[in-house]
Amino acid sequence: MISKLELENKYKSDFPILKQKVNGKDLVYLDNAATTQKPKAVLDAINDYNENINANPHRGAHILSVKATEAYQNARDTVKEFINAEFSEEIIFTRNTTESINLLAYSLGELLDEGDEIVISIMEHHSNIIPWQQLAKRKNLKLKYLYPGEDYRISRSELEDKITDKTKIFSISQMSNVTGVINPVKEMAEYAHKHGAYVVIDGAQGAPHLKTDVQAIDADFYAFSAHKMLGPMGIGVLYGKKHLLEKIPPFLTGGGMIEYVYEQSSTFAPLPEKFEAGTPNAEGAVGLAAAIDYLQKIGLDEIEKHEQELTEYALQKMEKLDYIELAGPDDLKDRGGIISFNLKGIHSHDLASISDTEGIALRSGHHCAQPLMKHLNLNSTGRISFYFYNSKEEIDKFLASLQKAREVFGYGS
Amino acid sequence: MISKLELENKYKSDFPILKQKVNGKDLVYLDNAATTQKPKAVLDAINDYNENINANPHRGAHILSVKATEAYQNARDTVKEFINAEFSEEIIFTRNTTESINLLAYSLGELLDEGDEIVISIMEHHSNIIPWQQLAKRKNLKLKYLYPGEDYRISRSELEDKITDKTKIFSISQMSNVTGVINPVKEMAEYAHKHGAYVVIDGAQGAPHLKTDVQAIDADFYAFSAHKMLGPMGIGVLYGKKHLLEKIPPFLTGGGMIEYVYEQSSTFAPLPEKFEAGTPNAEGAVGLAAAIDYLQKIGLDEIEKHEQELTEYALQKMEKLDYIELAGPDDLKDRGGIISFNLKGIHSHDLASISDTEGIALRSGHHCAQPLMKHLNLNSTGRISFYFYNSKEEIDKFLASLQKAREVFGYGS
Repeated sequence: MISKLELENKYKSDFPILKQKVNGKDLVYLDNAATTQKPKAVLDAINDYNENINANPHRGAHILSVKATEAYQNARDTVKEFINAEFSEEIIFTRNTTESINLLAYSLGELLDEGDEIVISIMEHHSNIIPWQQLAKRKNLKLKYLYPGEDYRISRSELEDKITDKTKIFSISQMSNVTGVINPVKEMAEYAHKHGAYVVIDGAQGAPHLKTDVQAIDADFYAFSAHKMLGPMGIGVLYGKKHLLEKIPPFLTGGGMIEYVYEQSSTFAPLPEKFEAGTPNAEGAVGLAAAIDYLQKIGLDEIEKHEQELTEYALQKMEKLDYIELAGPDDLKDRGGIISFNLKGIHSHDLASISDTEGIALRSGHHCAQPLMKHLNLNSTGRISFYFYNSKEEIDKFLASLQKAREVFGYGS
Repeated sequence: MISKLELENKYKSDFPILKQKVNGKDLVYLDNAATTQKPKAVLDAINDYNENINANPHRGAHILSVKATEAYQNARDTVKEFINAEFSEEIIFTRNTTESINLLAYSLGELLDEGDEIVISIMEHHSNIIPWQQLAKRKNLKLKYLYPGEDYRISRSELEDKITDKTKIFSISQMSNVTGVINPVKEMAEYAHKHGAYVVIDGAQGAPHLKTDVQAIDADFYAFSAHKMLGPMGIGVLYGKKHLLEKIPPFLTGGGMIEYVYEQSSTFAPLPEKFEAGTPNAEGAVGLAAAIDYLQKIGLDEIEKHEQELTEYALQKMEKLDYIELAGPDDLKDRGGIISFNLKGIHSHDLASISDTEGIALRSGHHCAQPLMKHLNLNSTGRISFYFYNSKEEIDKFLASLQKAREVFGYGS
């Protein structure tokens, strides 16, 4: 069993990029909700693929193609285990969460008819809003929103008000990328299923940080990205229940996803190829699998616990500072390692710039969640987001940078 | 100026994977039309990105995000120069050629109305067929084919017969991935434009091997993939004329491609972001840019010349062997470094397996071009495809492996 202290100190050295100095200061990387960094094990796996395996995985008879096909399939199996899917062919490799949700908006959307309703929440990332807006426009559907209460959480009564027998798709984030709120997706899915809706979970912030079991959640579809969990950019996952993936039409079409192509029509390959047109990103899949192996060695439980401790530590200190306004729940129940905040009188972009001079990488802006920002009556926030390689020492450095920003803006010490 | 000999010997050592032995034999990689290999310069660029730069490029104020944004934009500029686009924002990063063409089938397709016609050729890769079939089905359009003559080329009269004022989209490959035929895309585009059609060029086999100037071709859209030109998998390009990309609706929607997001509607960002939803694949773009830099140092003219010489050398030898049936033009005029063939009495899959035991990586099958195979009355072919790192010595080894296959099948020596 790894102690807390070990977790704080042990892993950072595996990440080449985290060793760098920024303006002479140690880099403190607190932008993990946007993109995480890669440990050497992931970089090595990608290099090994490129130096020893690389070829087009589709049905080649030569050794490299056979090895590439194996590596690609092994990666699919690794993902299957990671989220506890029932079948390997339920794992579709996409470009990222955004593409996964767009795939659904196009393909699952084909099962909907005029007047049907889609329910999402106001706390969604734009990638879980606009594809549904476009679908609603295309097919004359109704798009409805769940709104969180003053505790930033969606209440049971809000859920029961909005989800009805007209609801055909319910799509919700596992964790908000702004407030850090973790939604009770299992209970939400159960309720939506009672009304016959298809349940889509945006796991972009969930899969990297929370132990996730798609069968336990009973998600019909679950989407996430490799680059938010130590893996490469350009590769993501769409999980879907087998009978549903078989039911909906393909999205991207082309090579690798067909059985027979005639001049005027084509028949399509079985899962998972049906949804994977074109040369698959085998090297990206290999990188994602190496990232999952690395995460599994630490253990998602341990990661979640560590991030909770960091969040508690940061929130306790931040709550004491009267110049900080937090945009997220005060208590730690059901929230992850993402903290949005503002410094009174200082725009978050200015804060981010000043923090940067201290080596602190944080994000500022609307975090691709404009409807939520509007709902919260905010223009922008600063945001810190943790991963297991962060430490309390780094949070102290971040807090010192807030003080620095105050001084720059003449608020005294 | 690099001599032929230098080109044959100099570059192979830059590719770590090409140093490996297969079954104790030197690897002879002749599957470049499917996926090419990566030189150390490309692997180094990706590693450098991951070890020093990696972050989410979208508008971050911290140094890593600024550096990632710069690297991503520089890569776009490199691509722009490579194909001589007029504006950097005409370069859209996609996942690969397949996604680029799907994007057009969905977005450019929105400009078409019932009864309009799409013209493609029977020599297209499935990725330049099925998206148009799907579009035709969705909008009740007519999909028409150009057929090559006995010389495997599309005649001017065939072009003039099929393209009419009803033709709204004309989509054609720059080079066939089966027969190696190089289509006269500039002349074809000119004719299609006279009839008011949008011209799409599938450059998957063109961009890596032929010096390409999208303005000289007057292509409205041009698509290609990084992994066929020394770059990573999972990144590709769609070039489009600025006024056309501005005219067509977005395809994938989500973060990074918006201006304002309201609950029921959104406004979209200007080019190129409009077509790049979600976290961009910055590391893939950096890898593609490094690949282009490497190719430019050799020079596309030089690469084309070398591949022509290899093709001539191989064809001259293969034509003399009466047990070989070639599926491609005999003469070298307008053909690239791709040779499809069959050995009489031996299935191409068996050939590929036997060649593999000799370290020869070649492809067999329908090459994602079933309509062409049917047109040529073939079930499958073996295929060798060259890149600048191949040599005449490797062709000799390939020819020896054909002899070996004949012996295995009892055809004597």
